[in-house]
Amino acid sequence: MTTTIKDLGEIELLNRLKRFMRCGQIDDDIAELNAINKSLLINTDLLVEKIHFSEEISDAKDIGWKCITTNISDLVCSGSDKIISFTVGLVLPPNTPWKWVENLYEGMWEAMQEFGGEIIGGDCSCGEIKMISITAIGEMNPPRLHRGNALPGDYIVSTGFHGLSRLGLALLTFEQLPSEVQLSPELTKRAIKAHKRPYPAIKALEALKGCRPESTIWRAAGTDSSDGLIESIRTICQSSNCQAILSKTSILKDPDWPKDSIWDEWILNGGEDYELILALPKEWAKALSKKLKSAKIIGFIKEGKPNIFWDNLEKVNIEQSSLYKHF
Amino acid sequence: MTTTIKDLGEIELLNRLKRFMRCGQIDDDIAELNAINKSLLINTDLLVEKIHFSEEISDAKDIGWKCITTNISDLVCSGSDKIISFTVGLVLPPNTPWKWVENLYEGMWEAMQEFGGEIIGGDCSCGEIKMISITAIGEMNPPRLHRGNALPGDYIVSTGFHGLSRLGLALLTFEQLPSEVQLSPELTKRAIKAHKRPYPAIKALEALKGCRPESTIWRAAGTDSSDGLIESIRTICQSSNCQAILSKTSILKDPDWPKDSIWDEWILNGGEDYELILALPKEWAKALSKKLKSAKIIGFIKEGKPNIFWDNLEKVNIEQSSLYKHF
Repeated sequence: MTTTIKDLGEIELLNRLKRFMRCGQIDDDIAELNAINKSLLINTDLLVEKIHFSEEISDAKDIGWKCITTNISDLVCSGSDKIISFTVGLVLPPNTPWKWVENLYEGMWEAMQEFGGEIIGGDCSCGEIKMISITAIGEMNPPRLHRGNALPGDYIVSTGFHGLSRLGLALLTFEQLPSEVQLSPELTKRAIKAHKRPYPAIKALEALKGCRPESTIWRAAGTDSSDGLIESIRTICQSSNCQAILSKTSILKDPDWPKDSIWDEWILNGGEDYELILALPKEWAKALSKKLKSAKIIGFIKEGKPNIFWDNLEKVNIEQSSLYKHF
Repeated sequence: MTTTIKDLGEIELLNRLKRFMRCGQIDDDIAELNAINKSLLINTDLLVEKIHFSEEISDAKDIGWKCITTNISDLVCSGSDKIISFTVGLVLPPNTPWKWVENLYEGMWEAMQEFGGEIIGGDCSCGEIKMISITAIGEMNPPRLHRGNALPGDYIVSTGFHGLSRLGLALLTFEQLPSEVQLSPELTKRAIKAHKRPYPAIKALEALKGCRPESTIWRAAGTDSSDGLIESIRTICQSSNCQAILSKTSILKDPDWPKDSIWDEWILNGGEDYELILALPKEWAKALSKKLKSAKIIGFIKEGKPNIFWDNLEKVNIEQSSLYKHF
């Protein structure tokens, strides 16, 4: 018979979760933050069942990995290169199998082994649907990346491929693809991995920090592409009050990505990609694209009312990018 | 017609919530923590509809107040005398009226005006039930209160009345009272207020910090009585591996509290009180009870397997105190 968390009771549940947490923190409700003499960044993210994850396509380990890594991506794209700690708020129906909870924490643990940080506290409650609230804290060292830091003349840099996660989702849910094509097994594998096990662009951040030309100050605009490539550029334009001109041919595609242009939509607006989208002083952008193989200059920033155009002056459809409305 | 958050859409909703937050934080998903050179404490608490709050007995302003103050109480009872910041994770059904959300934030705002702190970030998602996840950060100055800090010989101090919130809940839900008595209008008022607008014991913490005798080191065990007076003492005994001997006659009651002993149950195990329950070196305990009118020495700590006894050696019923099982 499956042991549920109701069978365990709260005390035993918390006892079993101890091994995933910093020693000694579970006795009190509160945790100490070891962060003397550091600038900190903090981020809270919610994952709600059926909205952000579904057990039909992701197992608990993948969900655990994803809820930690999406938070890390928010820290990374703000400039944090050192992940310090997490608190986890967990709402679960009483009939949730213990094994599910254990797998969830194992997935979180795997992500923390890869990217750093530790769970230092949290809260647990029953509720009708599963819900995970993660607060992540990271150390901040220059440059602090803001959406609002872009200036006319900056180059726009993307640090990797887009669309893979969207394709992965389609494959996992047996959704109809944009056109009938034969996908390579490698692309299929990469797409599913991108969806189930997103990988924050922490190496890209390191490269960015390491390649700033001396002539350039620590000013960089940035966000991640978790809501889609175009949406991330739209928010930079919005916050920086400027326009973006993009070169369609410069946007990198996975080598096995279908050639048919109907597939571009997922690259532009697929979402759940976790690359850095940056607006940088030209020299810094060039240095980054030289240093980091996957980084590509895909456009530039100019003055004007917030908007995005292709370099043939065609307007980019921004409407389609607002896929991630939560209400 | 009532405007719902679905009518507003996410962007407008976030725009309208801006006035409750630290300026400039909403543009990025991330917030900066102004905490250089400080020791920090962090706490995450969940409030789930129908489990922790019910709209039938509390309006949104009260819920907002309560979700901030219960978090503050966790910080205070760990030794934090300065509340710095909050992040708010909010899950709401799409048909939630905007007015409800506004009132929720107004209640949070009122609590922050009273106790300090500011909202610096958060996340918002739709979901089938309402859920609020608050992460609170406070500055820590000595003494750091731990449940595990008690030592044999310590006096146990309670900083105020218990049972009021439980009575308030009963009155609000028209629950049958322990016995038929005429309650004074003042007691009724205090009970309902205690339930709807809990008040963290921040003044008691200040008094504690201010009255330590020079002969005594900064060692103090403490927690709040949010899960009930006896439960708070049980957890101190558990964490400190010791016993508590309590004097029933020393436990303070509201002056209008019914005399019938059947009502004691709510004082001992009612829960949702937010007093400090401390185990202190004798001299410090005496100094505190002299300095703070509402503070009372209610027992002492002795060696032995974790347990609680009355001073007539009768065992305290701990079973009844486990009211706050969440599963």
